Amino acid sequence: MCRWLAYSGSPLLLDAVLYRPEHSLINQSLRARMGVETTNGDGFGIGWYSTDGDGTPAVFRDTAPAWNNRNLRELASHVRSPLFFAHVRASTGSAVQQTNCHPFRHGRWLWMHNGSIADFHRLQRDLCMAVDPALFSCIEGSTDSEVMFYLAITFGLDQDVPGAVARMAGFVERVGKEHGVPEPLQMTVAVSDGQRVWAFRYSSQGASRSLFYSSRAETVRRLHPDLGYLDEVSDDTRIVVSEPLGDLPGMWNELPEGSCAVIPSGAEPDYFPFLPEPG
Amino acid sequence: MCRWLAYSGSPLLLDAVLYRPEHSLINQSLRARMGVETTNGDGFGIGWYSTDGDGTPAVFRDTAPAWNNRNLRELASHVRSPLFFAHVRASTGSAVQQTNCHPFRHGRWLWMHNGSIADFHRLQRDLCMAVDPALFSCIEGSTDSEVMFYLAITFGLDQDVPGAVARMAGFVERVGKEHGVPEPLQMTVAVSDGQRVWAFRYSSQGASRSLFYSSRAETVRRLHPDLGYLDEVSDDTRIVVSEPLGDLPGMWNELPEGSCAVIPSGAEPDYFPFLPEPG
Amino acid sequence: MCRWLAYSGSPLLLDAVLYRPEHSLINQSLRARMGVETTNGDGFGIGWYSTDGDGTPAVFRDTAPAWNNRNLRELASHVRSPLFFAHVRASTGSAVQQTNCHPFRHGRWLWMHNGSIADFHRLQRDLCMAVDPALFSCIEGSTDSEVMFYLAITFGLDQDVPGAVARMAGFVERVGKEHGVPEPLQMTVAVSDGQRVWAFRYSSQGASRSLFYSSRAETVRRLHPDLGYLDEVSDDTRIVVSEPLGDLPGMWNELPEGSCAVIPSGAEPDYFPFLPEPG
Amino acid sequence: MCRWLAYSGSPLLLDAVLYRPEHSLINQSLRARMGVETTNGDGFGIGWYSTDGDGTPAVFRDTAPAWNNRNLRELASHVRSPLFFAHVRASTGSAVQQTNCHPFRHGRWLWMHNGSIADFHRLQRDLCMAVDPALFSCIEGSTDSEVMFYLAITFGLDQDVPGAVARMAGFVERVGKEHGVPEPLQMTVAVSDGQRVWAFRYSSQGASRSLFYSSRAETVRRLHPDLGYLDEVSDDTRIVVSEPLGDLPGMWNELPEGSCAVIPSGAEPDYFPFLPEPG
Repeated sequence: MCRWLAYSGSPLLLDAVLYRPEHSLINQSLRARMGVETTNGDGFGIGWYSTDGDGTPAVFRDTAPAWNNRNLRELASHVRSPLFFAHVRASTGSAVQQTNCHPFRHGRWLWMHNGSIADFHRLQRDLCMAVDPALFSCIEGSTDSEVMFYLAITFGLDQDVPGAVARMAGFVERVGKEHGVPEPLQMTVAVSDGQRVWAFRYSSQGASRSLFYSSRAETVRRLHPDLGYLDEVSDDTRIVVSEPLGDLPGMWNELPEGSCAVIPSGAEPDYFPFLPEPG
Repeated sequence: MCRWLAYSGSPLLLDAVLYRPEHSLINQSLRARMGVETTNGDGFGIGWYSTDGDGTPAVFRDTAPAWNNRNLRELASHVRSPLFFAHVRASTGSAVQQTNCHPFRHGRWLWMHNGSIADFHRLQRDLCMAVDPALFSCIEGSTDSEVMFYLAITFGLDQDVPGAVARMAGFVERVGKEHGVPEPLQMTVAVSDGQRVWAFRYSSQGASRSLFYSSRAETVRRLHPDLGYLDEVSDDTRIVVSEPLGDLPGMWNELPEGSCAVIPSGAEPDYFPFLPEPG
Repeated sequence: MCRWLAYSGSPLLLDAVLYRPEHSLINQSLRARMGVETTNGDGFGIGWYSTDGDGTPAVFRDTAPAWNNRNLRELASHVRSPLFFAHVRASTGSAVQQTNCHPFRHGRWLWMHNGSIADFHRLQRDLCMAVDPALFSCIEGSTDSEVMFYLAITFGLDQDVPGAVARMAGFVERVGKEHGVPEPLQMTVAVSDGQRVWAFRYSSQGASRSLFYSSRAETVRRLHPDLGYLDEVSDDTRIVVSEPLGDLPGMWNELPEGSCAVIPSGAEPDYFPFLPEPG
Repeated sequence: MCRWLAYSGSPLLLDAVLYRPEHSLINQSLRARMGVETTNGDGFGIGWYSTDGDGTPAVFRDTAPAWNNRNLRELASHVRSPLFFAHVRASTGSAVQQTNCHPFRHGRWLWMHNGSIADFHRLQRDLCMAVDPALFSCIEGSTDSEVMFYLAITFGLDQDVPGAVARMAGFVERVGKEHGVPEPLQMTVAVSDGQRVWAFRYSSQGASRSLFYSSRAETVRRLHPDLGYLDEVSDDTRIVVSEPLGDLPGMWNELPEGSCAVIPSGAEPDYFPFLPEPG
């Protein structure tokens, strides 16, 4: 069980959303309200895209708790980015090591996950076998989340993000059923190529982990004047997060079960239905 | 704010009290019930005396949370000791580093502390100046707890433990008042020379952190048959801990405000009054 | 490239061989003489069997360099064992994480390795596929060494140690050749079940990493009076190590290319030939 | 014994000087040529000033070796700065902890040091006593280097950098002599306020650690075309480093004993004499 946050919009010091809000992600690492665990202290990670650079995101991950990590606070106060991920981890059993910390990166892609694959130790081999052999040795850690990422890449993330994730989810459910695990998948997932962020909320049993997205900036500004940093942000600035960063009514919207949000959404609706594609 | 445990009695695998009980210390590291914080994830430490050896205790300390530390679990399952300390830390601001983890050791002495010295950054210099100059460079970390330890040594821990701690407490209160800090000291402290454990509960405002001691073994055995390991323990086996390890009535006794317990207590009463000695 | 040490004989404080000798293993972590690298600072580990206990060895591993690790020094000064492993790591590219540190443990078995599988990233998937599916999810790290261990278990380590290791080596060479890697295997390996230690020295190209074993204790005693701890050790006490712990002539014997040593050797010769079994 | 590098000039990706050069600082962490130790694996740190921001430098420090640290590599590839420090540490005994890693920061100041104060444990208390009481609790670690920094601040770093460092050095030598330590100080020090870098080379015995500064950019460009990044750098771009980053004749100049270099030097000479000011 973990908590995560994805930001897309006007370039921002990470600090503004990671530390400053009343119920910031760093605060959630110590006292989450909606999580299975209140503590998410088994490591953390951030990934960010630069306005310049070659499009490859930077990743900073550590096995220490986020709340007491001085290096994270330093970076958050000095790194400015138009699109970044942050994740605080509560291990469901796998080792607390840097290669198990989110976000995961492959090429220009970032991936992070909250949830789990039930009985993963029983399904792990079949899932790994389905990963493109050329990618097999890219799997450095021992989490279900990383295997899900490489399955999604194997299933065409580069061409069609929602489709690839749907095929990954469908495959996990098929392998689960083959091993007598009827409801294997529990996930809220964020993935980005540096241009857009796709956020998925889905679980086999239809009772997914919490996931929220912020209202359009102009709405937020009107409702949330205390967040000074919002004054300069563009209208398409959005945040997707496991738990609202504050309690102000109207600011945060729950992403419905079985749906996918894309930010920036532009003229499109904020989200559309998501269903696994039977493997 | 921290949680700690001190054990004295029949040689025991640390695991038996650190992991197995319903509300074990490791469990308290993740979800303390009586603490100022529910999470004590800013490092931990254990210190133990061997039945053989030269009387110098071993210390194992790490900045990671206790609940996910595999090395701690390994040691707890393989180290047997007749007298050991364990501590899980919640930093009140000082750096999360090994030299700030408890227990602290000097020669044959172990020391651990839960609480704090109010406005320590203002009192620190005067307190450090009072430490025996020959010991000054033994202070490796930046905690109030370690300075309290070296003050107690300076004030005669070797000759008279309760007296030295009383003089330390009195001195801290005097320095506090000199700096306009009326109620500077909050402490539950455990100290041992390898033969006995002294446990103190005191605070300037008379509202000290929780501290409990176990009833005599024969009582515990009768009341707590589920703790299998108690069957072989001697009658003088005792545990002092920030929070009871379980909920069974009659097993745990609160150490009163302003008192000191000594274990093994032998024929003596379980505790006696403790008051700072005006500096 | 790494350095390792295996000890079997009279129960000993680890400190006696890890720190005290002139060119101890901890010294080798900072300035190895015969290694490909002089520095072995990418983590370390120790594993030890107790005289009491259930036969499962304890393992203590950390990603920090051995030479500056205070916890290792503490343990070495307080843990006594009749059979223990120690390993200092120089990563050949895989992540520096606890699950990549040696020794590896499975049930009562310990395993450690110096060397590498050439082009491991290309062979990794085929090698992992050959691991008993029931063991697949036991692989927590990303090293060639750990995969070699689980292949050896898959190939019958429980029944016949030299045979299982020979089949593992033969399989690695077959998979290597299939991928156009003519000389894939470079290894000095130590494995133990808590009763005996098997040490292997082999490489596909016939130019293996250095490996030495100590002469029988009575010989060593006569030649090496300065190692005080040897006075009490039994005649069957032996050490196998990547580099001699000292420079005294006659004390250390190189294990020949393509051979396996077993300690205690009892009446058997000190070593016998080892060759991979064609897979 | 450590190695350090200070850069001032055209904004640069840290990677360009930390990793790319033939004998980069990261390379020096594993195999220094001119150091007392070849290995500098007891932690590292970087500090950098941003072109925007409030003038407070960011600091990233870790106790792991620099050569295997993935987060350092990530930052070096994504952080661009016109003035930054980097330091790889070889502990002379004090704890390996983040608060003992260089550079140290106070307000807008960065400070790093290679060398030591002889018998520091004997001089430490007197030196700490001379630190401005208002700064005493800013000392978080246990190194001589950090105490030197706070002494320099106490002695007027804000008004006169060379003067304050001269008074610090003079005071250390006076305290040393008072304790019968005739040649207490060994230092190469870099300090910056974000505008300029002052680099000092001095030792009581007149045999200081190595320190080099790069020739003016146009000279370097002519002599060192292979360093592609130099093509865009301004003429006042300079590097001061413990060991040359390469072997090209004419590129690196040794800073003489008892001197101080200031970069950018502008019209001033590259360095001027430095002598302690008798305390």
